Amino acid sequence: MVIQPLVDIPAICAAHGVRQAVICPGSRSGLITIAFARHPEISTFVFPDERAAGFIALGLAQSSMRTVAIICTSGTAAANLFPAVIEAYFQEIPLLIITADRPPELIGQQDGQTIRQYNLFTNHIRGFFQFPASFNTVQEITHATRLVTEAILSAGGSIKGPVQLNVPVREPFYPSQGEELNFSHDLKIIKVVLPPVQFEHGYFDTLKDEILSYNNVMILIGQQRPDSALLIALEHIQEITQSVVVGELFSNIHTYSGFITNHEIVLADQESSSDLRPELLISFGGSVISKNLKNFLRKNPPILHWHIGENPEVVDTHQTLTQKILISPSAFFQSFARSIVLENKPKSDYRQRWLLKSRKARELVDDYLAECQPGEFAAVSRILRQLPDGGSLHLANSMPVRYAGYVGLKQNIAVWANRGASGIDGCTSTAVGHALNTSNLHILITGDMAFFYDRNSLWHQHIPPNLRIIILNNHGGGIFRLIDGPGKLPELKTYFETNQSLKAENTARDFGMKYYFADDLDRLDDVLTPFLSPDGDAAILEIETNPTVNEAIFTQFKQRIKQLWKD
Amino acid sequence: MVIQPLVDIPAICAAHGVRQAVICPGSRSGLITIAFARHPEISTFVFPDERAAGFIALGLAQSSMRTVAIICTSGTAAANLFPAVIEAYFQEIPLLIITADRPPELIGQQDGQTIRQYNLFTNHIRGFFQFPASFNTVQEITHATRLVTEAILSAGGSIKGPVQLNVPVREPFYPSQGEELNFSHDLKIIKVVLPPVQFEHGYFDTLKDEILSYNNVMILIGQQRPDSALLIALEHIQEITQSVVVGELFSNIHTYSGFITNHEIVLADQESSSDLRPELLISFGGSVISKNLKNFLRKNPPILHWHIGENPEVVDTHQTLTQKILISPSAFFQSFARSIVLENKPKSDYRQRWLLKSRKARELVDDYLAECQPGEFAAVSRILRQLPDGGSLHLANSMPVRYAGYVGLKQNIAVWANRGASGIDGCTSTAVGHALNTSNLHILITGDMAFFYDRNSLWHQHIPPNLRIIILNNHGGGIFRLIDGPGKLPELKTYFETNQSLKAENTARDFGMKYYFADDLDRLDDVLTPFLSPDGDAAILEIETNPTVNEAIFTQFKQRIKQLWKD
Repeated sequence: MVIQPLVDIPAICAAHGVRQAVICPGSRSGLITIAFARHPEISTFVFPDERAAGFIALGLAQSSMRTVAIICTSGTAAANLFPAVIEAYFQEIPLLIITADRPPELIGQQDGQTIRQYNLFTNHIRGFFQFPASFNTVQEITHATRLVTEAILSAGGSIKGPVQLNVPVREPFYPSQGEELNFSHDLKIIKVVLPPVQFEHGYFDTLKDEILSYNNVMILIGQQRPDSALLIALEHIQEITQSVVVGELFSNIHTYSGFITNHEIVLADQESSSDLRPELLISFGGSVISKNLKNFLRKNPPILHWHIGENPEVVDTHQTLTQKILISPSAFFQSFARSIVLENKPKSDYRQRWLLKSRKARELVDDYLAECQPGEFAAVSRILRQLPDGGSLHLANSMPVRYAGYVGLKQNIAVWANRGASGIDGCTSTAVGHALNTSNLHILITGDMAFFYDRNSLWHQHIPPNLRIIILNNHGGGIFRLIDGPGKLPELKTYFETNQSLKAENTARDFGMKYYFADDLDRLDDVLTPFLSPDGDAAILEIETNPTVNEAIFTQFKQRIKQLWKD
Repeated sequence: MVIQPLVDIPAICAAHGVRQAVICPGSRSGLITIAFARHPEISTFVFPDERAAGFIALGLAQSSMRTVAIICTSGTAAANLFPAVIEAYFQEIPLLIITADRPPELIGQQDGQTIRQYNLFTNHIRGFFQFPASFNTVQEITHATRLVTEAILSAGGSIKGPVQLNVPVREPFYPSQGEELNFSHDLKIIKVVLPPVQFEHGYFDTLKDEILSYNNVMILIGQQRPDSALLIALEHIQEITQSVVVGELFSNIHTYSGFITNHEIVLADQESSSDLRPELLISFGGSVISKNLKNFLRKNPPILHWHIGENPEVVDTHQTLTQKILISPSAFFQSFARSIVLENKPKSDYRQRWLLKSRKARELVDDYLAECQPGEFAAVSRILRQLPDGGSLHLANSMPVRYAGYVGLKQNIAVWANRGASGIDGCTSTAVGHALNTSNLHILITGDMAFFYDRNSLWHQHIPPNLRIIILNNHGGGIFRLIDGPGKLPELKTYFETNQSLKAENTARDFGMKYYFADDLDRLDDVLTPFLSPDGDAAILEIETNPTVNEAIFTQFKQRIKQLWKD
C-alpha cells in the first residue's frame, strides 16, 4: 500500500495551477515521480543531471511564469540544484523543489544518499517546508496537504521564487505491479485572493506635479520581461514629463526607438556626461549590467531616486535611493499613464540631450561594425540583424550579453539572460527550458566556456526543434582579454582564459542536433539562413574566432568611443 | 597597489603545509589566484567547471590527506562546489574553500555575480570564516592572518572536512603589469600541537577480559583508507579474541583472506543467518553499503556495540550502538594489539561459522560467474581479476561499487568510492584528482549515467596518464532494473532508467584520450591488456551491455544465493 499523502502532492499542485514538472530519476523519489507522471493535468520532463534540470525548470517557469515543480531524490541530487535555485531566487522565478529524503530518524546515520536536506538552500529560498514523516492521524494528513499548498503559494506569491518541500519517504517507494494510484478528491485546497484595488483619487496628480518640478527625469529599467502595455504607458509618461527612459537589452524596451538602450556607450566618458545627470531617478526591474551607468550615477547622483517594486528589500545598486514605492511597476505606470493628460509640455531639453548622444553612439557602432576586422563582435552584429521578428533571444553570460548590448536590437524579439546571479552555469539549460514552452524560434548566443560548462543541458529526450544555439568559440574565457586587468599578465592564458580546445561538433553529433560551422563572416552569412529557418530542427551554429583578434577589435572599439566624446 | 592580506593567503597556507590548490577562473578572485600561482611551494591546477573542480580537489586531498585549497570567484561558482563539499564533509576530507566575494556593502544590491555567500554551505561545513573587508588597522590585518590559520586548522583537525573562507575583495583585482607580488615574512603562524599520549596501563587488559567474556565478537569496518599497520593489528586481535572481521571492499581489508568481505551474500537469507549474530559488535570507519548486513544487525542486535572513532556525533547506522570510544581506530587497535598476548585460545567457533559460510558464498560466485551469460557482472569480474597489484581502484555509484563487492578482490589494490553521500555526481572527478597524486595505475569503474553526468571531469589540461576509465554502458540507469520495485512498472524506461543513447567515443576524442570498446567478453579480454598497460596513456574503455540481459543475470544470481542458504 502506497502512502496516499505522497500520491496527493501532484493533485494539490494541479489544483493550484501547476502544469509542468521536471523529474530527476531516483529511487527514494520513486512514488512521487510516478504520481506526477500519472497525473492527467501535469506534463513531465525527465533530465538526469540535476544541475541542468534546475535551470531547465527555471527556463520553463520563466516562460510561463507558472510554478514548475522539480522532483529529485535524496542526497547530493538536491545540492546540484543549488545554482539554479540561486538564479531563480534573484530572478524571482517560481519553482517548487520537492526533495525526497530519508525519514528523520535516519539522518546523519551514514545511510546511503543521506545528507542534511532540512532547509538546504537557507538564504536563497522563498520558503522551506518539511513534510510529515508519518500519517497515523488526521492531523498529520491535513498538515501535509496544507504544507504543499503553503509551499506553492509561497513560490507563486507577489514576490515569486524557489521553495523547498522536503519529503521524508518510507518504503514502499513504488506501487506494486498493476497497482493503480488514486488521487484524493476531498483535498482541502486553500486559495489566496488578491481583491481588486485602485490608487486613491488624486495620487497621480500629486505625483505628476512632483515629477514636473524637476527638469531632468530619468526612468531606468533593469531586467524586465516583455510587457507591451507597460511600454505604451511609459511612452505616454515620457511624453508628458519629458523624461528619458533608459534600459538594458534584457529590459525589453528596444522595440520603441524613443527609449535609450545604448547608455553604456553614451556614458563611456564620465567627464562629458555630467549634463545627462538626472535630478529625479525613477527605477524598476531587476539588475542592470552597464558599468558606465553605475559609475555615472554614483558620480552624478540624482536629488531623488524612487524605486518601484513589490519586494521590500532595500536594493540600492547605484547608492542613490531615497524612496521605495511598494507596488508592481506594471500597475503603477499603467495607472499613472491612464490618469494624466498632457497640458503644457515642459520645456526641459534633457531628453533631447540624451537622444542626441544616443544617436551619435548608434552611428559610431554602425560605422565601426561596417569597417572593423571580422571577429565575434561583427558576428554578433550580423546575427542580431538577421533575427526574425517574434522569436526570443537568450544571451549567455558573460560576453554575449555585453556584445548584444553594444549592437542593439530593433525587432520584436523577447530578450532573456540569467542576470539574477549572472553565472555561466545554466545559460543553455535555461534556454532549453524556455524553448520547450514556445513554438517560435528560440535563439541562444553563448560563449564556448558557458556552452561546454552546461553541456548536459542537452543530455535528455526533450530537445525542442525551435532551439538554435550559436556558440562564439574563441577557445577560452575571452572576457578576460576584454576587461581591464588580466590582459597583460603572464597568468592570462593558464589561469584566466583557460585555453580549451573543444569544438561543438562532437556534442552536436552526440545529441543528434544539426551542426553548422563558420570561421568567417561570408560563411556565417551563408549558414545563417538555413540555420534560422523556422521549419528546421534544433541546431548548433559554431562560430570560431581568434581571441587575439577579438581583443584588438574590442580595444579599438573602446578607443573610438572615447574619441567620440572627446571631440 | 594590491591588497597585501589577499596576497598572503597562500603564504599562510604554505606555512601550514598546504601544497596544492585548485583554481576556478574568475575576475573577483583574480589576485588570490595569481598569488597562489606565484607561490613557490604550492602547485596549482585549473578547472573551469566548479562542480568537477570541487570533486577533483576532493580526490587530491583524499589521496594526500593534506588540505587542498580551492579558489573560486563570486556568485554561483561557489554553489557549484556544493555537491563536493557535502561529499567531503561526510568523508571527512580536508578542503579549504576560498570564495571571493563582493565587499559586504554590495551584497544584495543587484550587482553582477553577487549572491549571499556568507556561510553558504551551512550544515555541511566544518567551519565558516569571513575575511575582513578593510585593512586600515593592524587589528584588521592580524585578524585576517589568524582567520586563514583558523580555517586551515579546522579543515585539517582531528575531524577533517571542508571549510569556507569567504573573502570580500575590493579592486584592484589584478597586480599591474610587471608588478611583483611579495609574500610577507613576518606572518604570525599559530600551530596546533598534539602531545604524544598513551593509554593508561592496564586499560587493554580490562578490555580484553571484557571482549573474551563474549563468545561471538564481530569487528565491523566501514569505509576506511588502506592502513597496513591497522590490518596487522586486527589480524592479531582477531586471533586472540577469535572474533570475525567484516568489511566492505572499500574498507580496504581484502588483502587478508581471513577477513570477510562477502557478507552481503553470506547474510542474504535472514532466516538461516541468526547463528552469525554477534554478542559484541566493535565497529569503526565510515559508511557500510551492505543492505543485508544492516537488516541482519537490526534483526539480530548484539548485546553490546562499541564504535571507535574521534567524531563525537552519534551515528548509529544499525540501531545497535551502546558505547562510543572517542579515539582514532588506528591508535586504538594498534595499542590494543601491542598490549595483549595470546594465553588460551577461546573456544568459540563463531569465526569458523562465518568463514565456512563465506567460503561457500565465494564458491557460489565463482561458479556462477563461470557459467552465467556475458554481461556487466561477468565483465566486472574479468576486470577485477586482471587488475595489477599496487594500483588503485575507484568504484563509482551506484552499480559498479555493488558489482565489485560481489566479485571481491585479492590483489594489493587500494579501493575508493564516494560513499560519503553516495552520489553519482563526482565519481570521475574524484578519480581524476586522486590519479593526479599517484604514479601507479588508477582505474575507475563507472556506469554510463555517472560518467556522462560528470563529463566535465575531463575538461581541462591536467588529465594524468595513469588514469584508466572503464564505463559499463547499458544506456541508462541500470540499477533501477536490479533493485526491487520499479522493474515491472510502465514508468521504468522513461522515468527511472532514463534511456540515453550516448557512447563515450566522442568524449574520448574531445579530450584526446585513447578509446577502447568491447561488447563481448572475448573482445574485453583482448583490449584489457593494452588498456591496463602501465606505460600507456590515459584511456577510456567502454563496455556496452544489454540492460535486459544484465537484469536476467542479476535476478538469476540472487535466486542462486537464496537457493544456497535454503539447501
